[in-house]
Amino acid sequence: MASFNLLLLPGDGIGPEVAAEVEKLVKWFDRQGLARFEVEHDLVGGAAYDAHGAAISDAAMARAEAADAVLFGAVGGPKWDGVPYAHRPEAGLLRLRKDLGLFANLRPAICYPALADASSLKREHVEGLDIVIVRELTGGVYFGEPKEIVTLENGEKRAVDTQLYTTHEIERIARVAFELAARRRNHVASAEKRNVMRTGVLWNEVVTRVHKDEYPGARLEHVLADNCAMQLVRNPKQYDVVVTDNLFGDILSDVAAMLTGSLGMLPSASLGAEDPATGKRKALYEPVHGSAPDIAGQGLANPIAMLGSFGMALRYSFGLVEAADRLEAAIASVLAAGLRTRDIAAPGANAVSTGEMGDAVVAAL
Amino acid sequence: MASFNLLLLPGDGIGPEVAAEVEKLVKWFDRQGLARFEVEHDLVGGAAYDAHGAAISDAAMARAEAADAVLFGAVGGPKWDGVPYAHRPEAGLLRLRKDLGLFANLRPAICYPALADASSLKREHVEGLDIVIVRELTGGVYFGEPKEIVTLENGEKRAVDTQLYTTHEIERIARVAFELAARRRNHVASAEKRNVMRTGVLWNEVVTRVHKDEYPGARLEHVLADNCAMQLVRNPKQYDVVVTDNLFGDILSDVAAMLTGSLGMLPSASLGAEDPATGKRKALYEPVHGSAPDIAGQGLANPIAMLGSFGMALRYSFGLVEAADRLEAAIASVLAAGLRTRDIAAPGANAVSTGEMGDAVVAAL
Ligand SMILES: CC(C)[C@H](C(=O)O)[C@@H](O)C(=O)O
Ligand SMILES: CC(C)[C@H](C(=O)O)[C@@H](O)C(=O)O
Repeated sequence: MASFNLLLLPGDGIGPEVAAEVEKLVKWFDRQGLARFEVEHDLVGGAAYDAHGAAISDAAMARAEAADAVLFGAVGGPKWDGVPYAHRPEAGLLRLRKDLGLFANLRPAICYPALADASSLKREHVEGLDIVIVRELTGGVYFGEPKEIVTLENGEKRAVDTQLYTTHEIERIARVAFELAARRRNHVASAEKRNVMRTGVLWNEVVTRVHKDEYPGARLEHVLADNCAMQLVRNPKQYDVVVTDNLFGDILSDVAAMLTGSLGMLPSASLGAEDPATGKRKALYEPVHGSAPDIAGQGLANPIAMLGSFGMALRYSFGLVEAADRLEAAIASVLAAGLRTRDIAAPGANAVSTGEMGDAVVAAL
Repeated sequence: MASFNLLLLPGDGIGPEVAAEVEKLVKWFDRQGLARFEVEHDLVGGAAYDAHGAAISDAAMARAEAADAVLFGAVGGPKWDGVPYAHRPEAGLLRLRKDLGLFANLRPAICYPALADASSLKREHVEGLDIVIVRELTGGVYFGEPKEIVTLENGEKRAVDTQLYTTHEIERIARVAFELAARRRNHVASAEKRNVMRTGVLWNEVVTRVHKDEYPGARLEHVLADNCAMQLVRNPKQYDVVVTDNLFGDILSDVAAMLTGSLGMLPSASLGAEDPATGKRKALYEPVHGSAPDIAGQGLANPIAMLGSFGMALRYSFGLVEAADRLEAAIASVLAAGLRTRDIAAPGANAVSTGEMGDAVVAAL
């Protein structure tokens, strides 16, 4: 039986609750003899700061380096609003992305038919929606230097962030997008601001070349990032795969997620480069939603995004594609049967708890 | 009779058509003896490049400096895709913004009741929507240096853009937002990415201080830019005034505009600092929509955003508040009477031409 090493980083807020539901899945796979998961646990975000004075410890980073996959919950909350900038909860996530080299962030935005009415958009615009935002995750303005605040002679402050991209960084994320599109509708929209940003000019140039030289069969469209945001609102179904930089990806993927009406349901995968020797790639999986400190600890959170993130790990890290399909079908069937956590329940309708939803998905498997 | 100096820069695509409708308004004001406008014309964008080899000539810039207000149509189109970067059509607009010091961009997103069904959002989310995005327009990643593409020793390219903000730049745009909010629902949401960007940290800090020291009666809320984009989709009516930086403002204002279902209808104002001696401020007014080269020259364009931009000029540059109210009422009445250009007509319904719409607004005045 295949055996994998999984590092679980529940984090803050609702992170631990939804992570607990993943452990039920892990046990189920074990019981079925489908795969064995060696699960380790560690802290990240505010929880790590409280314990170690850093948003992720070096020991946890070492475990993440060694794991076959990292499963990440969520970080942050008002409790840590005052901590020094370098130790804010998000720093743990950013260090994981950067140090593990997780340059490719895949954010599917799928509208579950049972939930189409939960969208603020009219049903016809979101029913059947199935797009993926491919976001560059280790470059751009997130990590470029200089990145600082300096005090000027006149007492004013001056803050700077640096948006930086190289040919190589754009090539590799473009390839991820084209490869993914090839298994879908083979249509890639590349979003940048070439009319204002030099990084946008280079982005456009490199994506155009990768398309021409390596994926001439795909349909490629270039779209300005501001227009892309509008088009997502106007008619999201025109897209298949949207590839974009770190900062635009942050915003566009959130817009796409919100369109579906299924924000608490959407998983994501952050992947590194394939090691040519082993064929393995580092990977981190996390729900698109945040830590929702306002509802933490009450059993109200929707675990589906977290369960779906485990599903993406099955698919992309463990090669258990059939198991991933089966898990996705189980989630869809539970929803079709009418089970709802509070976030997706109709006003006044009965809602199940985080644990009940997790149990139901395991039962449906 | 008050007399004003207006520079009309129609630009490219549908710019000239919609600008022609403004001239009808100007003549009407003249005839009524309400105000006299000295209208000058010049080129900008691709049209200027074709004529002078630059996206705006120094002579046109000098006229813009001297005008009481600039009315701008739209720029760009596939015809100029290949021109050198420094001369691309957008460069004309960026130079106007920067050289005239137009740091405050006001973009109202209003849902005309008659058009609520044109939105991709459900009617209940957009009916009655009335928010303003206040976008910083002369700083940030649009103008920060270095901004370049360099070729590295290994043949790769490396592109960089620089996001830069100083205390002073943030203070003055925050004041514009709080002043505007005071005449509305007195609620300001300030959007940044302080969890990732140092400019976001400074932005947050300065807006917080301006609020505390100068506008303690306003309600201030800080929101991460990615979450703000989501909230605009989920429930835009929660906002009143949203203040944000140049790049986030570009995207958030487009999302807000698209929500209304009235994209072809939305005007914007870009304002400079008040001259302490004269009380005057430089200003440019432009529709939110682009140059739409695909429908240019066919009389299909909706002139309302352009007419509304003239309305904003009446209000902010010429102090003709009553006339501005009257123009807005005329636009609303024409829409209520059922007149529609093609972009807002129901499928299959009759549509009027650009010129007919302009005539109808003048008649309603
Ligand atoms: C938590 C934060 C640093 C992060 C980001 O900005 O990337 C989040 O918004 C996301 O999209 O994963
Ligand atoms: C045309 C372009 C340079 C401009 C911008 O990015 O600011 C436009 O998108 C806008 O929002 O006015």
